[in-house]
Amino acid sequence: MSALPTVLAAIDQELEASLARLMDILRVPSISADPAYRADCRKAAEWTAAELKTIGFDARLVETSGQPVVVAHHRPAGATRHVLFYGHYDVQPPDPLELWTSSPFEPQIVEGPRGQRIVARGASDDKGQFLTFVEAARAWMTTAGSLPCAVTVMIEGEEECGSLSLPDFFKTHGDEIKAEIALVCDTNQWNEDTPGITTTLRGLLYEEVVVTAANRDLHSGLYGGPALNPINALTRALAALHDENNSVAVPGFYEGVPELPADVAANWEGLNFDVASFLGAVGLTSPAGEKDRTALQQLWSRPTCDINGIVGGYIGEGSKTVIPSKASAKVSFRLVGTQDPERIRDSFRSFIRSQLPSDATVEFRNFACAAAQQQPLDGSDLRASARALKEEWGKDTALMGCGASIPIVADFKRELGMDTLLIGFALEDDAIHSPNEKYELTAFHKGIRSWARILEALAKA
Amino acid sequence: MSALPTVLAAIDQELEASLARLMDILRVPSISADPAYRADCRKAAEWTAAELKTIGFDARLVETSGQPVVVAHHRPAGATRHVLFYGHYDVQPPDPLELWTSSPFEPQIVEGPRGQRIVARGASDDKGQFLTFVEAARAWMTTAGSLPCAVTVMIEGEEECGSLSLPDFFKTHGDEIKAEIALVCDTNQWNEDTPGITTTLRGLLYEEVVVTAANRDLHSGLYGGPALNPINALTRALAALHDENNSVAVPGFYEGVPELPADVAANWEGLNFDVASFLGAVGLTSPAGEKDRTALQQLWSRPTCDINGIVGGYIGEGSKTVIPSKASAKVSFRLVGTQDPERIRDSFRSFIRSQLPSDATVEFRNFACAAAQQQPLDGSDLRASARALKEEWGKDTALMGCGASIPIVADFKRELGMDTLLIGFALEDDAIHSPNEKYELTAFHKGIRSWARILEALAKA
Repeated sequence: MSALPTVLAAIDQELEASLARLMDILRVPSISADPAYRADCRKAAEWTAAELKTIGFDARLVETSGQPVVVAHHRPAGATRHVLFYGHYDVQPPDPLELWTSSPFEPQIVEGPRGQRIVARGASDDKGQFLTFVEAARAWMTTAGSLPCAVTVMIEGEEECGSLSLPDFFKTHGDEIKAEIALVCDTNQWNEDTPGITTTLRGLLYEEVVVTAANRDLHSGLYGGPALNPINALTRALAALHDENNSVAVPGFYEGVPELPADVAANWEGLNFDVASFLGAVGLTSPAGEKDRTALQQLWSRPTCDINGIVGGYIGEGSKTVIPSKASAKVSFRLVGTQDPERIRDSFRSFIRSQLPSDATVEFRNFACAAAQQQPLDGSDLRASARALKEEWGKDTALMGCGASIPIVADFKRELGMDTLLIGFALEDDAIHSPNEKYELTAFHKGIRSWARILEALAKA
Repeated sequence: MSALPTVLAAIDQELEASLARLMDILRVPSISADPAYRADCRKAAEWTAAELKTIGFDARLVETSGQPVVVAHHRPAGATRHVLFYGHYDVQPPDPLELWTSSPFEPQIVEGPRGQRIVARGASDDKGQFLTFVEAARAWMTTAGSLPCAVTVMIEGEEECGSLSLPDFFKTHGDEIKAEIALVCDTNQWNEDTPGITTTLRGLLYEEVVVTAANRDLHSGLYGGPALNPINALTRALAALHDENNSVAVPGFYEGVPELPADVAANWEGLNFDVASFLGAVGLTSPAGEKDRTALQQLWSRPTCDINGIVGGYIGEGSKTVIPSKASAKVSFRLVGTQDPERIRDSFRSFIRSQLPSDATVEFRNFACAAAQQQPLDGSDLRASARALKEEWGKDTALMGCGASIPIVADFKRELGMDTLLIGFALEDDAIHSPNEKYELTAFHKGIRSWARILEALAKA
């Protein structure tokens, strides 16, 4: 007889306690991009390892040159399957703080249009999401005494800042975490009542550009005209990144961008993606990407270039007539198909250099350089997981694309030969990376129940 | 017998005390652009009024909707001439702080290539400069018992942030400050041993542009492509402000820009302006302005457009894959001839709007809107002052242009019918508006002596 009904009942009974644990970890400001929060990142790692130990995992921190990685194992006697679960305990910086209605690291339970929701930085991305798996494992352990398959857990702390320590981690600990398949809970479902498995991810190239002109700030009256203004120069160079069609003008950028196969295009048409409501929810009306592509293609199958940050000169209140010495920008590219991130990085740098006048000096820093991913659509694990999700949610599981990038999925394939199932319970309006990030309590609850089902389904697949 | 030799001797003897007073006022962080320093602005105004009273002026603060204006009078019996002296006690914000070698409001005396110099925010612009006049007046009063002509002093506190209260001040106190001519000490001399009187000033239009796209920050993976990025949009709009010739592309911008008269062009050629050393001193090599104009023309007779500040998205350490809701820039135009600042403001705003996609909303704020100024070159006061300067410095006085803007000079002409003599002792490398601003001790000393001579010369002119 299946233990699943008992496990699911335990999850329902334990929900208040599960939620309290989520509130605990949300109070830790584990912002990996900012060195000031290094101790908090470690605290989040230690909290996670301690919880996994309490459940019955053999858990520890693996040190890296950056944030530690939580690694845990549970190997029940007689288990024939072995899965790796991956999540991350670090979060995005919360700024702009003034737009939050409550403090980002003092989680609040508030009433929303779909019932209660948890508001905090990391509520969805990825603390709420990775805890759905941990709590599902807890329910299996406390009711059935073990998991239905062997499980390795890896929760890292640099996902939001480029996972720079992971190449070394794979060298030293790749064999230890290798399993038959990786499970990642860091994506959306299709909508609030339809589950989804994400099978394509865009890649990410993230560069910082610093332009220097004069060796000090200058008075724009005494020098304006003959003195090169690095903001003028940088804005002109950045403006040249797109042409009139909103296509990216970096030479060679579109090499490796596949045309969408006719059957996939037809499938996406069938999804009846509501552009007006997708954009309307954030106050926009018209797709801003390549003019000859649909909004869903712009999002799932086309590469993009966005300036994620820019700063130079006087940015305080009022006015200052300065020609600054420096100006800088952070520029990222979402990549698809077989676009080569390293070649595009080099081409981007040459392109920016070619756009700047000779008196400008430019420096670059790289924060991410990951290719796009496509998961196979025909595996038994995918089918079993999709069925388990349908049993929980009562609707067919959507096989989705995703515009975002989860570079570790490429590492799993390249370094360990593992495919990945991307199963998440986040919603488009979770406001991840934005003020007032939230996670629906329903997503948390049914997410835990979904993983309980998927673990059993994979054990039998 | 002239009192002047005694006055000059007193100035030399009193130099240490004059310097100590300069150090006092430099310790007050009277940053008018930042409301946090409002009390310090008032403190600087009170210090100035108190010093003028000590000397023998009838001095007081005139309240405005912004910073108070110091107004003082001295009317010796029998004086036939009446001059107005103007300066400002407010200073630019000191950022970027990390580039200062000492704290901006803890003035230091350091050895430089031309002897001692005073390093502090405001050392040159304008506290050191306006004190040269105050100390000259002090020497006249202590030795001769009165000034050689009637003097009204006006020291304002909003010069660095647009002098927004002055229109009202002119309505209520214009008659009180009206004199035969205005003297302003806020400009450079020609070089370290050649005095100068500035006869042309560029105008200034200063605008802030705020572009809003989505109603919240978005994740660039989940929205990048279809969602409008306001930094992308703003950089494209700003890049369009200049054409390939580095000319300003705002429609109608060059209306009212005069061609340089042949004799003036010849005079400027005769100045042997050293472009390589002017630009080389700040680490640049090539004039960055309009391609068909000389560097001196770009600086003195041509209008410009500079982006003085820009900010949007994530500007902290590391990376964040955000598409922000807002991006903003501060843009200023230096104007010449009869360019109409209000028409150009309207044309600029229309131009920016026309460059933005329909989903972008844009707001503008104005911080300055002043036309260019040309002083008459044939007055007896100008000739008398130029001779007095030559007596002090031993070299002919240069009649200079200036790329900067001192909007009050236009107000003096329009509201009170007064011409202005712009006589200053600052040098190009004083780094005003920049880190490590300084004023040469020689400039301070010989500046005081120069004003003592000019006051006598004007009394007799």
